[in-house]
Amino acid sequence: MRISELSATSGVPIPTIKYYLREGLLPQGEHTGATRAEYGDTHLRRLRLIRALLEVGRLPVAAIGKIVAAVEDEETPVHRMLGTAHYALSPPVETDPADEVYGAARERVDRLIDGLGWQVTRGAPTRDELAQVLMRLEQLGRAADEDELRHYAETVMGLVAAYEMGKVPMDGPREVAVESLVVGTVLYGKVFDVLRRIAHESASARLLGIPPEPDA
Amino acid sequence: MRISELSATSGVPIPTIKYYLREGLLPQGEHTGATRAEYGDTHLRRLRLIRALLEVGRLPVAAIGKIVAAVEDEETPVHRMLGTAHYALSPPVETDPADEVYGAARERVDRLIDGLGWQVTRGAPTRDELAQVLMRLEQLGRAADEDELRHYAETVMGLVAAYEMGKVPMDGPREVAVESLVVGTVLYGKVFDVLRRIAHESASARLLGIPPEPDA
Repeated sequence: MRISELSATSGVPIPTIKYYLREGLLPQGEHTGATRAEYGDTHLRRLRLIRALLEVGRLPVAAIGKIVAAVEDEETPVHRMLGTAHYALSPPVETDPADEVYGAARERVDRLIDGLGWQVTRGAPTRDELAQVLMRLEQLGRAADEDELRHYAETVMGLVAAYEMGKVPMDGPREVAVESLVVGTVLYGKVFDVLRRIAHESASARLLGIPPEPDA
Repeated sequence: MRISELSATSGVPIPTIKYYLREGLLPQGEHTGATRAEYGDTHLRRLRLIRALLEVGRLPVAAIGKIVAAVEDEETPVHRMLGTAHYALSPPVETDPADEVYGAARERVDRLIDGLGWQVTRGAPTRDELAQVLMRLEQLGRAADEDELRHYAETVMGLVAAYEMGKVPMDGPREVAVESLVVGTVLYGKVFDVLRRIAHESASARLLGIPPEPDA
């Protein structure tokens, strides 16, 4: 298809498509003339991935470039490719390795993950991210208890393993797997978060014996 | 204590304290002279609350003002006071009541909450927030299944009821309850979110049969 049709089918404006082509996020079409190029399903799939990373993941274009490179390099194993996308979704955490308080929090995280028997690389930025939240809780006098954390982690894994992981289509095109991971991670993360806040309201109403609203 | 001591004890700089006094976030001290005022534990507690709302909750000063007003007005029941803080933590959601797709998503949320027997006001902004995420999932071809959502919700409630709600000290000073709710909601929300992403990495490694890293 022509670029105009690619734009109409994908809903992405032509100037935006041209920008993605220049930035190397979208592979060039097949040239069929001096000023003509043909685009196909690969381009449509890639545009969907880019939009998911931008709009759902809210990732900067530079991060998207790295993910696209991992998708394109068939030598990159699937797990590493998904890891690239996954880690890009984690906010960068500034850590001072010499900071003892931070070091202690990070050790607790490592112990937790080891204790659970989970398979997570030592360099995963999510370890630092968790250590930082634990540190903050401690500073505010709300240090998380180890058994409690473990129970949280096991419950969360139950949901992830049962409902989320199975939805990532591992045997289809590589970009479809990444897109699915990003959408799932970001949007199911929000579902989780909102449900937690809704549950809080209900638990608080019950605890304080608030009478229910009359039906409208 | 004098303002200088209040600053030293709380770690909040004097100009910031003066700003909070001007904005009405912090009650005036007891005047003991033309240019002197005495501050006490109420002020220390209030400063802790303001910092928690600002730094942990990342709330704008206007939202903090509303929460402080609910804390100060002893006529406001505790549940409503906590609700004010809680709802302030929800991002505003723009909804078009005439939008049919949105209406259907919102109906699914209401049905879910009714089915669970949770006690949540009809006007809770969290209902709209969840409806919006469900709509987005649907648009991306990943519509959440009703049984799945219900199971998520029940699991989340299990954690909230067992670990989080009991930690809000309901019978102490009103600002302490609000502070505890905000810190718990925001920081435990992050613990949850990071643990989910860590669980994803491990589940993906297992699913794809990735060999574990050798020990360093």
